[in-house]
Formats: sequence, C-alpha cells, structure tokens
Amino acid sequence: MIVAATEADGDQVRDIAAKVGFFNQEEVETVADLWEDYLTTGPVLGGYNFLVEKDGDRVLGFSCYGPRDLTTGVFDLYWIAVDSTIHRNGVGRRLLVATEEQVRLAGGRMLIAETSGSEHYEPTRNFYYGMEYALEARIKDFYSVGDDLVIFIKRF
Amino acid sequence: MIVAATEADGDQVRDIAAKVGFFNQEEVETVADLWEDYLTTGPVLGGYNFLVEKDGDRVLGFSCYGPRDLTTGVFDLYWIAVDSTIHRNGVGRRLLVATEEQVRLAGGRMLIAETSGSEHYEPTRNFYYGMEYALEARIKDFYSVGDDLVIFIKRF
Repeated sequence: MIVAATEADGDQVRDIAAKVGFFNQEEVETVADLWEDYLTTGPVLGGYNFLVEKDGDRVLGFSCYGPRDLTTGVFDLYWIAVDSTIHRNGVGRRLLVATEEQVRLAGGRMLIAETSGSEHYEPTRNFYYGMEYALEARIKDFYSVGDDLVIFIKRF
Repeated sequence: MIVAATEADGDQVRDIAAKVGFFNQEEVETVADLWEDYLTTGPVLGGYNFLVEKDGDRVLGFSCYGPRDLTTGVFDLYWIAVDSTIHRNGVGRRLLVATEEQVRLAGGRMLIAETSGSEHYEPTRNFYYGMEYALEARIKDFYSVGDDLVIFIKRF
C-alpha cells in the first residue's frame, strides 16, 4: 500500500536511504534534512513530500518530491529508493507511478529526475527510460570531473 | 569598488532587485531569503554569498552566488542585478568578473547561470554570451508554458 509517509516511518526511510549502498554520506544526509522539512510543513504540495510503500508497518521504499521554486507546474523527484533487500519487486515502479499521480493531481506539467551519468547509475537511468522519461539535458563533469548530471523528464 | 556585502547594504540590495522591473514578486522575495541566509552564515563559501559594487555608501549592483549541493567545484550564480538607473556602465560585467574570481579562488570548476529563454531575457542571455558563457542546456516550458529554462555555464 502506498501512502503519504508519517512520522513513524522516519527511521525506516533514513535506513533505506543509507543502505542503498551507492549514495554517499552527504547525499544520505539530505534525506534527513528533507524529512525534517516534511514533518514540519506536513504533507502539503509545497516543499517536500514523501510517499512510502508499506507492508504492514514495514517501509519497503519511499519517494520524495516537491514543486520547483519559481516555476508553475514543475516538480522535482528528489529521491526514490527501495529497501536494498527487496529490489526487483516493482516497488520502485509503483512508487514512481504514485508520485506521478500526485504530481498530476497537483497540476504538475512535468516531473524532473536528476541523476548521475556515471556507470554506477546505469540501472537508475534504465529505470527512468523504462518509465518513459526522456533524457533532456546533460551537464558534463557536474557532480565531479567525469561524473555528469543527466536530467530526465516526464511531461504530462 | 567591489566588496563582500555587509548588513548595511541589505535595503539597497533588495531595492535594486525590486526595481529591475522584469523580475516578478516571487523572484524578488527569493533575494530577501538568500540575503537573510547570507547574514546568518556570514560571507563564507557555503550557502549564499553576496558581492556588491559600491560608490561610497551607494550600492550600484550586486551578485549572489554559492556552491551547489552534492557537487565538488560547481557554483551557481543565483542573482546578478544592477541599479536600473545606471545600466550599461559596466557594473554587471565587473560584478560577474569578481564573482568568477571568488569562485575560482574557492576551487570552483564552473559557474552556472540559469535564466529564461523568453524574449524578455534576451539582453540577459546576450550578457552571458558576451562574458563567454556557453548555453549548455535548455528545458522547454520550464518556468511556464512557452518560457524555457536555459543553462549558461562558464568552465574554468
């Protein structure tokens, strides 16, 4: 079941992010920051929103998204992560579909997923391609030398 | 003279941003937010930094820049604005050169200036072209339908 995350899900959300394995510590810490923001402002369509897929009390994965400042109708997918022990079970796909639905309901025209162009992130890029996202821009050497930013977009 | 902005410059910085004319209220309010952040954290190379060109106590223009999270060596130019009564006097050019110098001193590899692809912003885009920035990416209909995001980058 996919629902808006509540305070009780916080530890599991952070834990999933930490255990994905290929995010560095700075990246994992951003999840904690976004989470604090979410708990403060609540699940409204400003700032950061978290969806979780749960099996009972267990959080299987989460997505974090929100509207981009200074735009009308543009949303960012900040995070999407699945418990590293249960990959390839459709959790990521279901979370992304649910996120897109929320974005559309909020009047979103597009959802942007920024990720890395490195070899490491090839499964991530293939995930977005499979979900019908288009690679619309690439900034060479963005994250670090040799590690490009790639910008995937789905337009509604 | 171009210097790091101090608290006393705040009113003039906000005033310049408001009077540029083609920024909307939401955009102008971001300046106030960035400014508050700058005063809180001080002129360090995290968060937001403001440079001002001054003639005595008068602020002629300002730039606001800072490092991009999750990258090494990437800086964003958040704002650059000149008192609307004294355009075409080289203030913008000098502020941008000074900003680039600070970015390089901080180990910056590139400075990113995001702006609009609309007709309205043609002078802005020409300014970046003239300063040897390259238009590296364009996201169609980003700010609103018909108003693209264009990403200018200077690499050091």
